[in-house]
Amino acid sequence: MKTVRVSLGARSYDILIGPHLLENVGSVFQDYRISRRIFVVSNPTVFPLFGAKLLERLSSAGFEVTEILIPDGEKHKTLATVENVYTYLIAQRADRGSTIVALGGGVTGDITGFVAATFLRGVPYVQVPTTLLSQVDSSVGGKTGVNHLLGKNMIGAFHQPHLVFIDPQTLAPLPDREYRSGLYEVIKYGLIYDGAFFEFLDLRLDEILRRSYTLLEDAISRCCQIKAEVVATDEREDDLRRILNFGHTVGHALEAATGFREFTHGEAVAYGMIAATRISLRLALTDSALAQRVEGCIRRIGELPPVSHVSSARLLDAVYRDKKRQSDRVVFVSLDGIGGTRIVEDLPERLVIEVWDELSRRTPEAD
Amino acid sequence: MKTVRVSLGARSYDILIGPHLLENVGSVFQDYRISRRIFVVSNPTVFPLFGAKLLERLSSAGFEVTEILIPDGEKHKTLATVENVYTYLIAQRADRGSTIVALGGGVTGDITGFVAATFLRGVPYVQVPTTLLSQVDSSVGGKTGVNHLLGKNMIGAFHQPHLVFIDPQTLAPLPDREYRSGLYEVIKYGLIYDGAFFEFLDLRLDEILRRSYTLLEDAISRCCQIKAEVVATDEREDDLRRILNFGHTVGHALEAATGFREFTHGEAVAYGMIAATRISLRLALTDSALAQRVEGCIRRIGELPPVSHVSSARLLDAVYRDKKRQSDRVVFVSLDGIGGTRIVEDLPERLVIEVWDELSRRTPEAD
Repeated sequence: MKTVRVSLGARSYDILIGPHLLENVGSVFQDYRISRRIFVVSNPTVFPLFGAKLLERLSSAGFEVTEILIPDGEKHKTLATVENVYTYLIAQRADRGSTIVALGGGVTGDITGFVAATFLRGVPYVQVPTTLLSQVDSSVGGKTGVNHLLGKNMIGAFHQPHLVFIDPQTLAPLPDREYRSGLYEVIKYGLIYDGAFFEFLDLRLDEILRRSYTLLEDAISRCCQIKAEVVATDEREDDLRRILNFGHTVGHALEAATGFREFTHGEAVAYGMIAATRISLRLALTDSALAQRVEGCIRRIGELPPVSHVSSARLLDAVYRDKKRQSDRVVFVSLDGIGGTRIVEDLPERLVIEVWDELSRRTPEAD
Repeated sequence: MKTVRVSLGARSYDILIGPHLLENVGSVFQDYRISRRIFVVSNPTVFPLFGAKLLERLSSAGFEVTEILIPDGEKHKTLATVENVYTYLIAQRADRGSTIVALGGGVTGDITGFVAATFLRGVPYVQVPTTLLSQVDSSVGGKTGVNHLLGKNMIGAFHQPHLVFIDPQTLAPLPDREYRSGLYEVIKYGLIYDGAFFEFLDLRLDEILRRSYTLLEDAISRCCQIKAEVVATDEREDDLRRILNFGHTVGHALEAATGFREFTHGEAVAYGMIAATRISLRLALTDSALAQRVEGCIRRIGELPPVSHVSSARLLDAVYRDKKRQSDRVVFVSLDGIGGTRIVEDLPERLVIEVWDELSRRTPEAD
């Protein structure tokens, strides 16, 4: 088992990563002095897989556990779902001394975190992420929230968990497409922060694709460590934390332009990273050998769905609607070699158009 | 003009209190480096009184100001109202560089603060409270939130304002009943924290009832100072901050038992403080001369609506439903002389029943 400490003063917390960790959830929760009353928020996909074991282990260790199931999927990441959880918690007389546990992927974690942030002005919560994406991304950093009809993640709060509890073996039943989607974010950490980690991933990609739990323990820990370092330096995303958005400007725009239905977040980010790499090349921040290596590694993870029907005009429109814009400038994270980034504050639209036209004209295989 | 500093590390802020302050809002906002884009959230009662002047002064000083009107009244303090404000903000392309200003009483401040806490995971906001209650209570401490169908203030977040801007002259048009309701909370600060302040209020009550702005400036500043001291020591209400709940256990219960329709919050707290004083007397924490003096001062503020139809059984039921209960114990703030408090963790139900029976049997005049 590995432990990553997220240092945020009074709000510091640990991330535990290890295969078979779920077996020991009872004693771990005791060690971390989790409250006796626990509400496990999960969804009908994940709960049947790990819910019974989690509840049984916690009950055996003396916790009083109640489950709350919420619908799965991004379209349910709304204030309406949040309100249903409040209702249940109030009816069950949850109080400030109760702990809320999120068992599931990013959607469940985001909703549950927002409930924990806003129920009785904040109650403790524990994340038990069960997808690769949520293990390396949304479970670290305290971002919680839901979507608004007019925009994704427009509503939210920063609320740090009490503990993050990651068992890579929960990834066993994860559908292949979702698993690969998480891997794109794993690659991202290497690209923006740690060239050696990228080398490791590039070298061992086949084993990682076969879900070697030993390698996953290492990879997830390193991702959490990187994110924890970034977040500890800059909890509120004013500066350093922006590097985590590498690939996300174009990625978010691609998701938005296609109604969040065609691409997983990871796939959209994969395209975003490829676009950002090619833009970095045009800005002469990286050379073409490196750019090809980065794109090659991303492409090796799997075949990406085609984007030939998404015009650069549609994409650009979505870029400017993106909430990450600061006033009217688009802040863009570009690659500066492998393992480094540079913030480009006034990215010429022309560059985005050129690169996207190039990407969307070809099928991925042709590259 | 007086300035009260609320010391909360990086989240510290100033409260400015002074008659005619509204005249100078433009230069004050410039001094405090408020963002150029401002959204003023107000309601149809308050906006016609001060809205035009506020907007004009801010526009003259170079700010770009948009108003958002929300319905007034506790029954609109809901997630639905919050969602409407989000929609408006998104449609107007508000971003993290925008500032939200709450112009109105506690309801407007609570809703606006919650929007500011949760829109784009938190944007800066400024409070311009226009009722006595909100000036001395809800504008200090960072509590924001809305009601749930099953309970008041169940949903919320801590979010500190960037600035609190109090002009006592905004109290001129305040209805008498609301003004008196605020005075009960003013008295509370003297009782729990500062005997000399209570003496001052008791002595000058007639002038204060006539709304002397000079005395109000002093009184409001002292209340904010006391609350700021308490909040700075204990931002999250784990210990010291509980003393602010003096009178609120029975007060909240009275409001809840009567459906939040018959009593203003201040009137309910007035009854709560009288009940708490009598309970303190029975606990021998205060003597009968002091208790009579406290009750006398509260009664002199004005005639309280009768409570003869609220049985002690109904009241007690509401006490135990109150969210301030910790697990199943009722935490009760009692008076320890004037200017001091003592937390009673296991208040015998019998005492609440006895005191309430006594209070509700008599009309206020008979006391």
